[in-house]
Amino acid sequence: MKFTFKSVEGSIVAPQGFRAGGVFCDIKRLGTGKGSNKGPKRDMALIVSAVPCAAAGLFTTNQICAAPVKVCVPRVAKGQAQVVVVNSGNANACTGRQGMKDALAMVRLAEKALNLPDGAALVGSTGRIGVTLPMENIRSGIEAAAGVLGSTPDHAAHAAEAIMTSDSRPKQIAIEFRLGGRPVRLGGICKGAGMIQPGMSVTGGRPAAAPAGLHATMLAFLTTDAAIEARVLRAALQEAVANSFNRITVDGDMSTNDTVLLLANGVAGNERLSAGTPRAKPPIRARDLATFQAALNLVCLELAKMIVRDGEGVHRVVTVRVSGAETFADADAAARAVANSALVKTSWHGGDPNWGRIIDALGYSAARIVESKVDIGYSAAGSRQILWSLRRGQPTSATFKELCAAVAPTEFDLHIRLNLGKASAIMYAADLTEHYVDFNKGDVTDPTSLGG
Amino acid sequence: MKFTFKSVEGSIVAPQGFRAGGVFCDIKRLGTGKGSNKGPKRDMALIVSAVPCAAAGLFTTNQICAAPVKVCVPRVAKGQAQVVVVNSGNANACTGRQGMKDALAMVRLAEKALNLPDGAALVGSTGRIGVTLPMENIRSGIEAAAGVLGSTPDHAAHAAEAIMTSDSRPKQIAIEFRLGGRPVRLGGICKGAGMIQPGMSVTGGRPAAAPAGLHATMLAFLTTDAAIEARVLRAALQEAVANSFNRITVDGDMSTNDTVLLLANGVAGNERLSAGTPRAKPPIRARDLATFQAALNLVCLELAKMIVRDGEGVHRVVTVRVSGAETFADADAAARAVANSALVKTSWHGGDPNWGRIIDALGYSAARIVESKVDIGYSAAGSRQILWSLRRGQPTSATFKELCAAVAPTEFDLHIRLNLGKASAIMYAADLTEHYVDFNKGDVTDPTSLGG
Repeated sequence: MKFTFKSVEGSIVAPQGFRAGGVFCDIKRLGTGKGSNKGPKRDMALIVSAVPCAAAGLFTTNQICAAPVKVCVPRVAKGQAQVVVVNSGNANACTGRQGMKDALAMVRLAEKALNLPDGAALVGSTGRIGVTLPMENIRSGIEAAAGVLGSTPDHAAHAAEAIMTSDSRPKQIAIEFRLGGRPVRLGGICKGAGMIQPGMSVTGGRPAAAPAGLHATMLAFLTTDAAIEARVLRAALQEAVANSFNRITVDGDMSTNDTVLLLANGVAGNERLSAGTPRAKPPIRARDLATFQAALNLVCLELAKMIVRDGEGVHRVVTVRVSGAETFADADAAARAVANSALVKTSWHGGDPNWGRIIDALGYSAARIVESKVDIGYSAAGSRQILWSLRRGQPTSATFKELCAAVAPTEFDLHIRLNLGKASAIMYAADLTEHYVDFNKGDVTDPTSLGG
Repeated sequence: MKFTFKSVEGSIVAPQGFRAGGVFCDIKRLGTGKGSNKGPKRDMALIVSAVPCAAAGLFTTNQICAAPVKVCVPRVAKGQAQVVVVNSGNANACTGRQGMKDALAMVRLAEKALNLPDGAALVGSTGRIGVTLPMENIRSGIEAAAGVLGSTPDHAAHAAEAIMTSDSRPKQIAIEFRLGGRPVRLGGICKGAGMIQPGMSVTGGRPAAAPAGLHATMLAFLTTDAAIEARVLRAALQEAVANSFNRITVDGDMSTNDTVLLLANGVAGNERLSAGTPRAKPPIRARDLATFQAALNLVCLELAKMIVRDGEGVHRVVTVRVSGAETFADADAAARAVANSALVKTSWHGGDPNWGRIIDALGYSAARIVESKVDIGYSAAGSRQILWSLRRGQPTSATFKELCAAVAPTEFDLHIRLNLGKASAIMYAADLTEHYVDFNKGDVTDPTSLGG
């Protein structure tokens, strides 16, 4: 299928019928002015649809999951919402009963500020773990954000800024494509930076099968004006997240707060994509479903890659492509072992094509590996022209200088072929730098600097 | 049982009937003089008994295991040996058929140089992966080492130096204790530093159940003049390693070469500890077995801790004590998740008592965790006086300043109680520093600097 789209401005407010806003309300209680939409970095965002939306979401599979996740899961399960309220600076995680009360108060404050019924709001939080929310600041922030809502790219940018923690820049995207001849838009914002190796599911909490599991909080909020039934939306989001946000790692630590939410308000007026839509005929509907999936895959993958590129201290981004595994579980385990090996990640930082460390990590992974079958090579990002350093377990004639040149770019692909089967997996990974260590060792003389 | 011992000098040559030697033979081919026992750091060691020994060994469970491991496993399985030959500077890993030929040539060269029969030698290698051994240097090194054997503490120290790679200092210990009234000695040397999270088994290679699995090469060579049957020796070594070398992690990367070898030559003349020895009666034999086990546990644990303390870039050593898990597998998974979390390790480096990152790591581990039951606290190393930061999932009244003071020492204990069952596990872990990253990113302008 050929998927045609164009990039547009405005991320989450690019789709019709959405407004957004972001303000500073001093969640970290630094003592500076509250409720301003100027001044210090914003820390409270609202994303609002003019009409009720179909809603879908995926949440961290960490067993320790934050109050906003616990509040969102049953709300999203109902498949409908109209507003998302998000704060940075405090994760509202490990905050016990008070945390649950506060998260519920947040959604009610948002619903009240916007004159929406109970159940209309979803919530996300990111920042420090183990500290209860400053509810006075939350209240004033939500009221202020409700007062500055709008649909310009600036409004979206303010929301994108408000959800940032250690991110160095806001992360936004929007595209336009056609469903049944009508223009439809899909946009998103996200944040990441550290404690990043999401493994999200629809229900959150303990997964049926635990992910190889490692992550900083990542949050992503997506909007579309497509008309689509909630359960179709959820299936589409699961597929998109499985191949994007759940395939990234910065430091292998999975957060207590990872959340992806998607609101679809139907304002574009396309023929509604419903669960009853036959995949085969009438063919036009199957094509529309495939088109929407392609759009969602693209937006999620681009946002996920932005998180890795802006990971704490990250200098190089490496796409680890494992193929030829016996099972997907093997391919996944092999890719994650390499992507999270401290020795492999430091060698990437050093521009060192150290295949010894790579095959060592493959060997201790849970994947079945046969030394005499392993191929390891490098290519430019997205290229199929591979420079092999190892074929069938034996070093090739590639010189050290040639291999160094292959791993010198700030983005490159690492190709690992196990040659045992047909399963494959990709991880979007990052190097490990002195800057990551320096940033995360924190400054104990300034406890507010110590993030979750 | 009360175990009484005294420390003695000479590590591996402290037991009667053992000699050792270490020389420089330029394994890295830096071009400096070979076969000298002065000059650059030694890189070839021999440890020799005057008489045949009972032998036991444990080996990396990495599926990619080095040629010396493959050569040792079947030899050790026979339960007898008399000499160990070890080189640093080259791991002889991922070297294919040539690597196997070279490892076999090493044992034969050692046997020949000492006029010992085929099968008498065991072998260990550590250093760069994927480069074949310089056999001319190996040959001259073995011959030179055989010419400088002796039983003084200096001889042991030379061997301890010869097995070092990125270690900053040699690691040695020896103790004397009594078996059936006779004085018996047990000594050992080891090396570690990076690629350290061993998970060793008797057979090496793929384990029945893969370890949580993460490691630099660690090598340990132990000698004793106790009289003990090989299968008793093996069982004792398995127990000791399970509670020492297999409980340490520096960077979570498991090596292709991890090896622990133990030779027992019986020269002390104690009543032979045999598999036929009843554990219960006559009580004196059971007591001797228990005494030998206590001695071996102590020596292995002290050596294992030396590896963590001298890990690459390590500033702080943390003993992670998980208790109250439902199963040992849960306790082990919880302890390893915390011990290998990049965020937890950087917080230790920063002297930051960040329990949020600790409970986050517990939550994404494979262990079952209930947030409202978790206790997290700190004590001085080995102390039971615990300062709790979290009880039953709730922050205690301990102040940030008090908690910072608890994690300020270069060694402290982290206590995690899951309060779900009775299983426990310990990991001896290290912080993650800028120095580790700087060291391991290497220098691509000097490929000889790039270790395995």
